[in-house]
Amino acid sequence: MTHKKSYTLGELAKMLEVELVGDGQCLINGLATLESADTGKLSFLSNPAYLGKLSSCRASAVIVEPKFSEAFDSNKLLSNQPYVSYARASEIFDKKLISKQSVHASAVIDETATMGFSVSIGANVVVGAGCIIGDGCVIGPGSILAEGCVLGKNCELNANVTLYHAVILGERVVVHSGAVLGADGFGFAFDGEKSVKIHQLGSVRVGDDVEIGAGTTIDRGAIEDTIIEHGVKIDNQVQIGHNCVIGAHSIICGCTAIAGSVTLGKYCIMGGASGAVGHISIADKVQVSAMSLVSQSIKESGMYSSGTGHMKTREWKRNIVRFRQLDDFAKRVREIEKLADKKKESEIAD
Amino acid sequence: MTHKKSYTLGELAKMLEVELVGDGQCLINGLATLESADTGKLSFLSNPAYLGKLSSCRASAVIVEPKFSEAFDSNKLLSNQPYVSYARASEIFDKKLISKQSVHASAVIDETATMGFSVSIGANVVVGAGCIIGDGCVIGPGSILAEGCVLGKNCELNANVTLYHAVILGERVVVHSGAVLGADGFGFAFDGEKSVKIHQLGSVRVGDDVEIGAGTTIDRGAIEDTIIEHGVKIDNQVQIGHNCVIGAHSIICGCTAIAGSVTLGKYCIMGGASGAVGHISIADKVQVSAMSLVSQSIKESGMYSSGTGHMKTREWKRNIVRFRQLDDFAKRVREIEKLADKKKESEIAD
Amino acid sequence: MTHKKSYTLGELAKMLEVELVGDGQCLINGLATLESADTGKLSFLSNPAYLGKLSSCRASAVIVEPKFSEAFDSNKLLSNQPYVSYARASEIFDKKLISKQSVHASAVIDETATMGFSVSIGANVVVGAGCIIGDGCVIGPGSILAEGCVLGKNCELNANVTLYHAVILGERVVVHSGAVLGADGFGFAFDGEKSVKIHQLGSVRVGDDVEIGAGTTIDRGAIEDTIIEHGVKIDNQVQIGHNCVIGAHSIICGCTAIAGSVTLGKYCIMGGASGAVGHISIADKVQVSAMSLVSQSIKESGMYSSGTGHMKTREWKRNIVRFRQLDDFAKRVREIEKLADKKKESEIAD
Repeated sequence: MTHKKSYTLGELAKMLEVELVGDGQCLINGLATLESADTGKLSFLSNPAYLGKLSSCRASAVIVEPKFSEAFDSNKLLSNQPYVSYARASEIFDKKLISKQSVHASAVIDETATMGFSVSIGANVVVGAGCIIGDGCVIGPGSILAEGCVLGKNCELNANVTLYHAVILGERVVVHSGAVLGADGFGFAFDGEKSVKIHQLGSVRVGDDVEIGAGTTIDRGAIEDTIIEHGVKIDNQVQIGHNCVIGAHSIICGCTAIAGSVTLGKYCIMGGASGAVGHISIADKVQVSAMSLVSQSIKESGMYSSGTGHMKTREWKRNIVRFRQLDDFAKRVREIEKLADKKKESEIAD
Repeated sequence: MTHKKSYTLGELAKMLEVELVGDGQCLINGLATLESADTGKLSFLSNPAYLGKLSSCRASAVIVEPKFSEAFDSNKLLSNQPYVSYARASEIFDKKLISKQSVHASAVIDETATMGFSVSIGANVVVGAGCIIGDGCVIGPGSILAEGCVLGKNCELNANVTLYHAVILGERVVVHSGAVLGADGFGFAFDGEKSVKIHQLGSVRVGDDVEIGAGTTIDRGAIEDTIIEHGVKIDNQVQIGHNCVIGAHSIICGCTAIAGSVTLGKYCIMGGASGAVGHISIADKVQVSAMSLVSQSIKESGMYSSGTGHMKTREWKRNIVRFRQLDDFAKRVREIEKLADKKKESEIAD
Repeated sequence: MTHKKSYTLGELAKMLEVELVGDGQCLINGLATLESADTGKLSFLSNPAYLGKLSSCRASAVIVEPKFSEAFDSNKLLSNQPYVSYARASEIFDKKLISKQSVHASAVIDETATMGFSVSIGANVVVGAGCIIGDGCVIGPGSILAEGCVLGKNCELNANVTLYHAVILGERVVVHSGAVLGADGFGFAFDGEKSVKIHQLGSVRVGDDVEIGAGTTIDRGAIEDTIIEHGVKIDNQVQIGHNCVIGAHSIICGCTAIAGSVTLGKYCIMGGASGAVGHISIADKVQVSAMSLVSQSIKESGMYSSGTGHMKTREWKRNIVRFRQLDDFAKRVREIEKLADKKKESEIAD
């Protein structure tokens, strides 16, 4: 992609495959929110709750659903999925430097590694023996690929990514800085005195169109592989234990901790800092709210939560004392109910 | 700073701007706790709860508040803020090697980058096109700055830090190893079938005197920037989502997860492993206790908590069963109360 | 260790020090689970719950306890600790490339550093002044050791590990990629306006046979050292604050956050994403369940938990409202009980 400074609305309408209402010659040089937009900017309305902001918005154009077209006086791009159209526009206006096809002189590439066409390798990258790097891959500076890794076409590894041996990525996989794929799963056998390491003989296999956030770690399997299916999006500092299977198109928000051997369904959403204990299965289309722990298998799609919600600490301290007494408490209420029932019975008997 | 092996108490009193009581010629070669201190060591009393330890402390001198001066027989440095004075003394006795002004031969620095005076660049550092590195900055080995980053004066990036493009740091910013600033915010538009990436066009702007811990990730903004204001201190493995604004002088303890578009007030303290869901505001001077989740905006300063506190697992298992029944339970108590009220009424009526 | 493609069962029985029942000439080329095993594979039964799977297992041999020997028709390796024997076998079949003794030309090693025999140093490694690297150590590409670090014999640092100055590792310590040892502990003294940094003058000392996971951070001590005792196993993305003492052979699962100055006993297990607040002591042999917070010292061994367990979000929302009312609620129940007691008394008095 070239980085033109601006596009006409007409050009954008074509690129985004949306209907233009207004001046096709109007020049757009970037994106902006409804509040901050000014002349030259393209904005968007994806949440109808903000409909009221359209009247005062000073953007040169907005992306809106056809039904809200009337609410904005100036140029419009009509889309049935304004948020998706905005996502596509964001790619057009991304000013990130596109790495040129080149291998930096300081890169250390094993002679047995195979490079596709149009590959870009940054400074101080290390590529181990037998690695296969697909066409169009970009590997950021300082990234390290141990022996036998395979990258499909057009993968993008940012700076300082680490791949252990034999990690396999599909096509168009994006990995952010500090992420570590294929480190040893956490497995030890306790011999009564000390922990004996279980060497992790599996690897990590990642499907197409997966994004993996900064500082995220995905461990290699003990015997079989850890698997991330197509289209999965993983945020920063997520931990995925050995032998997990993360179902296609699931979304895993930041700081989520998934223990070993968890099977997560397709189209799931794990909220930020949520967790799942090991050796469980979670059905398709399950949503887990922030900082909730899934402590056993979930068989039915739907929304799940744990925790207490926050409150003033003073109030909370009193309540957690009571939480400790809950079971005792429940029994006392049952006792009173029995008494009340007896009373009622005796009244009826009266 | 030079690393003299020792200082006289008189020198230290001057450097710390505190009052000396005792022998100004006494030599001090390091700091120690009240319990472990021996001849040659300077200790401090910051928590009055430990006042009793002064009598048996063998330090050559202690930093104390004037009102506790009597409690220690030997040399004293009188300070109204002993903990602050200790902090200043800790800088004097820090033996960490001070990097000399130099650019390591292995560093890969783009010819369009601008270097200030007295800059130190470690081995294998990569500095991208158009970066501007302020006077006195120290960049540790293996750190990578993508194109267009700007570092104010006297920043200290430790080894293996990653800055994505266009990240802007103020003056005296310290970033620890493994930290990643400016990775893509986690934004996708779901088109009914798959997640379409929202390119993150904003950046990260960090104020003066900010410290950022090891393995911490701060994402770039979607359209506008993610902002860390002056004096903020962030511990290890903290995640700060795109478009957050972290108010000046707030403290964020280790492993805290802050989702996107959170506005945190000034002088807040987020306890260890705490969290905040996205798109909320938290007032100034709010303190959130460890592993608590802020699940909606907080408008009033004060202390907030969530969770249950720990207990024996056996006991806990009984209580969490009851927690699931709480709503039903509350209704049953209300029922009994009504009954009791009726009873009382009827007694009164009697 | 050489990487033969296969071993006879007889050879394996000797190496694993277990009793062979069956054909000692049978060739084994790898490990497999009971379900997936096929000819040439060695499997194992460690959990008696899976005993039923033995009859249909197609492995060429299985490791079993003597008492379950009858349950499998083909070759067996009899072990009193099948899981431990499997762990040992996993080492034999690990195909990870063993680094040859060598120092990569791109490594930057200070002339004052001392290297033992048979040391392997990867590409772009940086070893600071005065470091001492023990015999047989392997340091992966991109790893950085600041000045004065000491590594005992046969340590294995994977790629992109960071050690700050003066960090000391025992023998056979394994550190995974992205881990950071010895970054500054999080200490600041608030002077009424801003946070003054407390320089962290201690270091990190790690015992023998410790494993440290990917992205884990262990901070250096404020005055004295942070200590990890022998045999401790730490998973990925764990945070250990300054001046902690982690007792021998304890297991710390992924994403656990341990605040500063925590003393954890020996043989403890901290479950995944669990936490401990600062300045507390936890007894030996304490087990903390996943995502539980230890909010005060634990003096007795046993299992501890916090949290609520997950439930459907709709149900959960009703219950957390009640949780906020728990204290009030408890008082109301007490009130009713008093009433009931009075009633009973009056009935008795009647």
